[in-house]
Parts: sequence; structure tokens; C-alpha cells
Amino acid sequence: MSKITKWGILGCGKIANKFAEGLEVLPVAILEAVASKTEGKAENFGKIFGVKNTYNNYEELVNNPAVDVIYVATTHNFHYKNALLCLNHGKPVLCEKPITLNAKQAEQLINTARNNNLFLMEAMWTRFIPCIVKLNEFLDEGLLGEIQHVTANFGIKKELDPKVRSFNPDLGGGALLDLGIYPISFARMIYKQPPSKIKSSAYIGKTNVDEKSCYLFEYENGQTAMLSSSHRLIMPHDASIFGTKGYLEIPHFYHPTKMILKLEGRPKKTIKIPFKSTGYNYEAMEVMQCLNTGKLESKIMPLDETLEIMKTMDILRSQWHLKYPGE
Amino acid sequence: MSKITKWGILGCGKIANKFAEGLEVLPVAILEAVASKTEGKAENFGKIFGVKNTYNNYEELVNNPAVDVIYVATTHNFHYKNALLCLNHGKPVLCEKPITLNAKQAEQLINTARNNNLFLMEAMWTRFIPCIVKLNEFLDEGLLGEIQHVTANFGIKKELDPKVRSFNPDLGGGALLDLGIYPISFARMIYKQPPSKIKSSAYIGKTNVDEKSCYLFEYENGQTAMLSSSHRLIMPHDASIFGTKGYLEIPHFYHPTKMILKLEGRPKKTIKIPFKSTGYNYEAMEVMQCLNTGKLESKIMPLDETLEIMKTMDILRSQWHLKYPGE
Repeated sequence: MSKITKWGILGCGKIANKFAEGLEVLPVAILEAVASKTEGKAENFGKIFGVKNTYNNYEELVNNPAVDVIYVATTHNFHYKNALLCLNHGKPVLCEKPITLNAKQAEQLINTARNNNLFLMEAMWTRFIPCIVKLNEFLDEGLLGEIQHVTANFGIKKELDPKVRSFNPDLGGGALLDLGIYPISFARMIYKQPPSKIKSSAYIGKTNVDEKSCYLFEYENGQTAMLSSSHRLIMPHDASIFGTKGYLEIPHFYHPTKMILKLEGRPKKTIKIPFKSTGYNYEAMEVMQCLNTGKLESKIMPLDETLEIMKTMDILRSQWHLKYPGE
Repeated sequence: MSKITKWGILGCGKIANKFAEGLEVLPVAILEAVASKTEGKAENFGKIFGVKNTYNNYEELVNNPAVDVIYVATTHNFHYKNALLCLNHGKPVLCEKPITLNAKQAEQLINTARNNNLFLMEAMWTRFIPCIVKLNEFLDEGLLGEIQHVTANFGIKKELDPKVRSFNPDLGGGALLDLGIYPISFARMIYKQPPSKIKSSAYIGKTNVDEKSCYLFEYENGQTAMLSSSHRLIMPHDASIFGTKGYLEIPHFYHPTKMILKLEGRPKKTIKIPFKSTGYNYEAMEVMQCLNTGKLESKIMPLDETLEIMKTMDILRSQWHLKYPGE
């Protein structure tokens, strides 16, 4: 793959920095242009990463003919609007997760991409991390036998502040969309199907968003997943997969560097699989490979699956009577 | 506490052996008599542990005036009948867990004990293990702040065999009563209240018992617990407690020797608290202390709590339409 891909980044926050750092280790990638609506932010970002085109608006970015693909790195309350702008200007899009606030928006984005023959992918970077690629190989080979149960938790403690996006319903706040997307997408990846029954519990805090939530998913054949996310609790970000032959523990499952394997009758074994740079480089590689081979979506993070995951999150929020303004 | 307590053990299976081994390290305990209906089993047991009175029936045991208290060590399908026999012959009882098959039986046992002014306790040995005693001290001191979430899993893989008690509904089979009692009793201990909402999923296997089940408990104030048990999956027997100030991980939570503490802004810290002998000695000590001070139940494993836990398990089974013969 020698073709150079010229990237644009829309939004210059924390995750955009990590992504740009990831691009630096990819010889086939050039960061062509960046845009932020915050005055001076794109310019500063450009200085750090040596980007020649820096814009204080998104229109110039999507109208730059040199840009091959745009990474939408804004917060999820803006994804729909921002990704739509890119698609409507003929740009392929890698969109931060969750792809939108709800399934309706996701469906509209997906339809727009498909109608315009444009690539679109949700930036679920976890799936492209080498350790997770290996995990999927293990499972496909039947290492754990038939998978029966999955657990995954994601908790980061933030100080409760109604002005902060995480706690602000007007900005799509709540732990489900911010963090719950990881365990939910992880379980979806393992079982290769959406849950057939969803049971849940959420603690809706003073600012009217989910500060903590737990989900019990049931699948066909009695398979289960117990998942949780919280903005108010420190939790180890660990996942476990239990099969008929043993189990795998995956510390920091959203960007793991090792797995602990326990097979029946054998001692525990640690399998180390480090990743390079920030880890965002692997999803970028997938995007470039798809673009270079004319694929409009990724087989590893397909759009129908992205839509299904959004539907699952819609169901969870409906169980908690949690709606965002305008829904 | 210098008074000698003379113990009887009803049932001479695996757990009776562990308990007898535990008694050996207690100078104030004498194993006075043991009984098993299996010909020769009590005699063999007596040889191993130096017990002078060995019976091939339970009647001689409960009629032996030298016996101060009886440990009912049969499987739970026999607990109600066996414990009732002891109580009706004026013997205080330490009864293996779960105390009975259901809340109705538990209530009858408890009423019998109370009406006869006899001591009765469910043998939830976990609560008396030094590491768990320390855990409760930590929580009472507010080490973790307000507890918000608890997880606990208990899985042991057994080969599916309809003749084996674990898979036989006629013998009270299923993972809930065998193993689920541990995570459920653990969560009850932590929250000091029963769940206000119970959501669950169970895989009922070919032999019509729960081979795997998951429970999502909700408590007042949005507290939660995610618990599971399985007879068909190898699982680490770990529990975690998440509070507003940090979390504690407890490997082998049903008889732990260490806790891993993670407080906000501090590195993880392992706290080692070993236990002596088989660990069953601690619950035996509690029983003897209660008997010597005229207490008819333990404050650490009170009868109302035992009954509540049985009610919780009844609710779970009713959600799965799992009834035992005669219920």
C-alpha cells in the first residue's frame, strides 16, 4: 500500500491530538488540514503536528480538494451535523464514537454515505488494536469453546459539574454514550449479534443524565453479557470472556496490551501483544486500506453493526426515560 | 472463652471433613459425635478425626445428651428435614448454606428455632473469614466512601451428568443454590439490605436446572450489584466493591486471603490477611461464642437476613419458572 492518503481532522480536542500522533507513524498518511471553530486552536494544533492548512471553520476543510478523508473528532453531540457536512461535500468520513446521539441520526448518516457512494466508519479504534485482532483470531479458532458469558466495565470518575459536557443533557451527556459504547460494542463484536433481551439499571443524577448504568444482555442460546459504565466511579477497565473451555481476561479492554488466558486444567498464561504509538494509527490504517481498495465500509466495523449498537443504546435510554433535547 | 463445646456433625461428606479439620485448631471445641446414613461412612470419618461416637443414623446423634450443637453438613435438599430433626430434639444448629431450598422452609426452621429458644445459624463461613471481617471494618469506616456498585461471580465447571445432584432438580440442583448463594449473600452483607429490584437471566439446561445465571440487583439510591454463578463455566471467584472514593477487589471472595485496594489518586495496594486451617473454624467460633453468651442467633449472619436471602433466591427462580418437586 504505497498510495499516500491525505487526512483532514475536524475538531482539535484531546482525541484529535492522539489521532494525529498516531498518523505520524504511518508513512502512507499525511495530515493535510485541520479545523477548529475555537479561534487559534487549529493553528496551534497545526504547529504541533506540522499541518500546513489550518482553518477556524469547517467549511474550508470540507471544501479543500486535496483532503481525501476526514476524521470527525468532535464530541458526539456534534457528530451528526459534522459528519453530514463532510459527506455532503463528497468527503469519506471516519467518525468518532458513538457515531451519533441515536439510531435515527446514525441511519440518516449511513444512508447519506451509501447514497453518495462514500466511505463511512465509526472510529471504534479498539477493534483494530493488535491484541483485539488476536483475540478475535483466538475466538474464531475456538480457543475458548463456545462463548457463554462476557463482562466488561468502564468507569472514570469525574467531578460532578453541570457545565461539563459529560453531565449536561443538552450536550449529549451521560456515561452510556461516553463510555458504555465500549463494553456494548465489545460484546457485539464477541457475539456477532445484537442482544435479544436487554435488562438494565441506571442512576440518573441531578443533572438528568446517567451517571452510572449496568446492562444485562441476553443472546440466543442463553448467552449473556454483564456490562457497566460510570462517570462517577473509578473502575478497572477490564473485560472477561467465558467459554466452555476456559476464559480470557483483558485488562484495559478498550486498548489492551495483554490477555490472561485460563484454560481448563492449565495454569493461567499471560499473552502480551503491545501496540505502536497511540493506537489510533490502526483504525487509520483500516480506513486507508478500505479507501485504496474501493470499499465503502469496513468489514471489522460495518455500518449495520454501528446502527445496531445505536439501537441498543436507544433501548437502554428508553428504559431509563432519558431523552436528549430535540429527540 | 474456656467452656468446652461438644459438636456433633450430621452428614460426613466433603464439607464435613473441612469443618472437622477446622474444629481441630480450636481448643474449646470437641467433635463429640458424627452421623451418616451411608453404612461405614461415619465410622471412617470418626477414625480420621478421632471421634468416639459414630452413628449410621441421625436419631442417635440428636438423642446424644452430650452433644451441645449440631452442624448440619448434608446437601441443601436435606437441610430442612435434618435441621428440623435437630431442633425438635432440642439441639442448637449450624446449618450449611443455603439453609433450605426456599423461603417457606427457611421460615419454618427459623420459627421452630425461635419457638424452642434454640440457636440457629446458616453456615455462611465467608462472613467470619478474617479478610472479610476486615473488609467490613473498612467499609464501616468509609474507606471507599459510599458504595455504589458490587460485582461477584462464582463459576465451577462440572461435567453435565443428570445423575449428579448439581444437575438434578429432584435433589435441589442448579448453580443458584449451590454457588449463587455466595455472591447473593455477599451483596446482602455489603449493602445491609435486600435488593429493591431484581432482574436476571438464566440458562436452564437439559436437566431443567439453572446451569448459568446472572442477576442485576438494584437497591435504594441507585446502588447496584451484578452477580453470576455457573456450574458449566470456569470463572475466577472474584468480587469487587466500587465506592465514591475507590474500589476493592477481592479474589476468591468466598474465602479470601487478600484484598486489592485502589483509592482515587493512589496506586493499587494489596492487603494480605491469611486465615488459619480450613477457614470453617471461624464460623464454629462464632457459634460457640453465641452459645456461651446465651445468644440465639448471630449478629453477623442473622436469621432475618438468611430468610431475606432465601426470598431473593425464590424471586430469581420464579423469574426462571424453576420449581423443585413438591414446591
